[in-house]
Amino acid sequence: MKKNVLIIGAGGVAHVAAHKAAMNNDVLGDICIASRTLSKCEQIIESITRKGHLKDTSQKLYARQLDALDIPATVALIQETHSEIVINLGSAFLNMSILEACIETGVAYIDTAIHEDPDKVCETPPWYANYEWKRKDRCAEKGVTAILGAGFDPGVVNAYCALAAKRYFDKIETIDILDVNAGSHGKYFATNFDPEINFREFVKVWTWIDREWKEYPTHSVKRMYDFPVVGSCPVYLNGHDELHSLSKNIDADSIRFWMGFGDHYINVFTVLRTLGFLSHLPVTLTTGQEVVPLKVVKALLPDPMTLAPGYIGNTCIGNVVKGWKDGQRREVFIYQVSDHHACYEEVESQGISYTAGVPPVAAAMLVADGTWDAKTMVNVEELDPEPFIAILDRIGLPTEIKEIEPCSAATFDGTVRDLAQELSESTATVTVSAANPMIAVAPKPR
Amino acid sequence: MKKNVLIIGAGGVAHVAAHKAAMNNDVLGDICIASRTLSKCEQIIESITRKGHLKDTSQKLYARQLDALDIPATVALIQETHSEIVINLGSAFLNMSILEACIETGVAYIDTAIHEDPDKVCETPPWYANYEWKRKDRCAEKGVTAILGAGFDPGVVNAYCALAAKRYFDKIETIDILDVNAGSHGKYFATNFDPEINFREFVKVWTWIDREWKEYPTHSVKRMYDFPVVGSCPVYLNGHDELHSLSKNIDADSIRFWMGFGDHYINVFTVLRTLGFLSHLPVTLTTGQEVVPLKVVKALLPDPMTLAPGYIGNTCIGNVVKGWKDGQRREVFIYQVSDHHACYEEVESQGISYTAGVPPVAAAMLVADGTWDAKTMVNVEELDPEPFIAILDRIGLPTEIKEIEPCSAATFDGTVRDLAQELSESTATVTVSAANPMIAVAPKPR
Repeated sequence: MKKNVLIIGAGGVAHVAAHKAAMNNDVLGDICIASRTLSKCEQIIESITRKGHLKDTSQKLYARQLDALDIPATVALIQETHSEIVINLGSAFLNMSILEACIETGVAYIDTAIHEDPDKVCETPPWYANYEWKRKDRCAEKGVTAILGAGFDPGVVNAYCALAAKRYFDKIETIDILDVNAGSHGKYFATNFDPEINFREFVKVWTWIDREWKEYPTHSVKRMYDFPVVGSCPVYLNGHDELHSLSKNIDADSIRFWMGFGDHYINVFTVLRTLGFLSHLPVTLTTGQEVVPLKVVKALLPDPMTLAPGYIGNTCIGNVVKGWKDGQRREVFIYQVSDHHACYEEVESQGISYTAGVPPVAAAMLVADGTWDAKTMVNVEELDPEPFIAILDRIGLPTEIKEIEPCSAATFDGTVRDLAQELSESTATVTVSAANPMIAVAPKPR
Repeated sequence: MKKNVLIIGAGGVAHVAAHKAAMNNDVLGDICIASRTLSKCEQIIESITRKGHLKDTSQKLYARQLDALDIPATVALIQETHSEIVINLGSAFLNMSILEACIETGVAYIDTAIHEDPDKVCETPPWYANYEWKRKDRCAEKGVTAILGAGFDPGVVNAYCALAAKRYFDKIETIDILDVNAGSHGKYFATNFDPEINFREFVKVWTWIDREWKEYPTHSVKRMYDFPVVGSCPVYLNGHDELHSLSKNIDADSIRFWMGFGDHYINVFTVLRTLGFLSHLPVTLTTGQEVVPLKVVKALLPDPMTLAPGYIGNTCIGNVVKGWKDGQRREVFIYQVSDHHACYEEVESQGISYTAGVPPVAAAMLVADGTWDAKTMVNVEELDPEPFIAILDRIGLPTEIKEIEPCSAATFDGTVRDLAQELSESTATVTVSAANPMIAVAPKPR
């Protein structure tokens, strides 16, 4: 049994997690929210208070200022707050510093995204091997439970893989993780979380095909899929965190990730990327200033936190799994649908933050009551998925499972052909800009 | 008779002007090229030498370093070089400083664009009244010839207006100045001159309709026109320098300016503008840096100077003039076509710089030989257009004149209807972004 939770970070995902932790503080104990900007933590507490979400009012809910790159400061805060579980929802640049503080103090660690070095993007796969897994032995020695990637994707979709292997398949052939946001924020263009982190996902595509890492240009492979609730949407082959542990832990030939983008998003993204605005490398202005273009993009785009009040529509995230059960071909779609407006009504947040912020609290609840007691570093698919999915059903993210007739029109075609063929079939063309010699994809003239 | 020319600036237009001045230095005398960066001046001299363009080798061609915002330094350079004509082809932010130095030393001044204050865009029309015309009395008192806007547009198109009034019309009804670049630089996106100045032209549209200033959103009014040589092209109602003097000096009901843009240009421009990248107002980054987004755009786009070698196709710039002559309706198109590749072959420059850089040298030649001897501040349309057009015919920019059957299918429809009607007829729709509440135009979904 572990008590008292330290939430690090005060962005959109931390906002949701703090609400959900407060709503389950009979299990979790005291809750401290810490970030570089104290006022942002206090705003979250105001929101929780406004909603009357502190379930057990005998437990504390409070804020602290913290620079989480400062390991001794984080160690001191963990000790001072008597926290036995740290939920890290700060920037992905902070992960290894916070993990070090957890190892030093012997407390449980939960995060939702892979560590990133500000100066590097889309490093050699598997990404977990670059930073996290190098610290696995030290977690095991100290008996520290470190649960990596416990958001929705990565996180819940990893548990869906484990569930498919445990209950639905004798042998898995392919897994296609589909993430579509069919909601509308009403802005010309916005990202649903920190643009600086968001756009780093789209520099190039690392995907796991036929048990090998394959590299594709961003947005070069497109499929349509008729989703439950949200209907038919385009999705594009994309790289994503979860592939970097599932490729090691799940026995399947191919595991691919697909993200939904509308034509307008693809157009704006293509312009920004082709011109070099999404670069994390500084350029020199005529004023002599050295400026990272991506930081200017971040300054100009709407703050993702401001999108929530007007957001309408649904998200749908899930796994199409194909394989065999009892000698028969089988295909299932294990998925979750969230309604942006319902999320806002409940916790004053939009659906993207909601789907990412609820799962780490479910994970913390399982760590708190001893159900998940790894005593080492694990990715979510290495843990029993059923208690996790059961808590999520109860606290806001119910899972649905749909059987699909194999090889029918309703099936998802995740087969990736050679690039020239993909591009000739897609509605996009690859152009290489001399101004920015990365491959970019522009809409094909009609 | 005036001798010795000081060219201030060392960008693409100055490059062309220096070549043409060297090719006519028997009229102009010594040529000094001065700019903030001495090496850029020296590169121009190398290009002139490479091409063997110094006609009279007994005259000097040399470079000087100059910060032209420093009026005493400019005064000293004018005196040291014994220059009697200054051609100002530096940034539009420098104009009033350079003009002051010319008034102080009593030498002739020629520029090609209206003065701009870095902190202001699209000020109250007429723009010449904000800075230039306030100094007209002082030019007259000192007998200083100051010729404003002597590039192509403004410049040659102003002379075309004067020519129309002098030779082709008893009464002018409308003038539509059309500027289309039907060339291709082979880059994903680039501006043909300094992006910082270029995009300032497109913040909003001031136009002269029915003898009043009218304001329209950028790219909200579109027409097609079948140009000589380059064929049918879309043009958009645009604000432009020349309207701000022609509205005062030319007796016509409406004088409008139209600029050609392809769909791809409009798309990229719309994305950048709607997101706020074209703003001259600084934003604060998470690093604490204060950054002007437009300066980042400038740093990321190709240097206009680098476009020349691969540029192909033609420009066509001219005036559709409608009115009456000898009691009959008349319509003429007075225009000039330039070939990018031919410009490069001749002076190692592209056609946009060529059309802007040749006219101020023609003006300087007329000032040098006393043909244009205003002894005050004038705009080009106030001077005799015929000697100017005659020199241009001879030194690289020959004028063509085409009679058009009034009210035929070949006529240009410059009538501007109300905005709602224009937008419903055009292929573009107006959207207002909450992120950037300026009106922006996005392509209409088909």
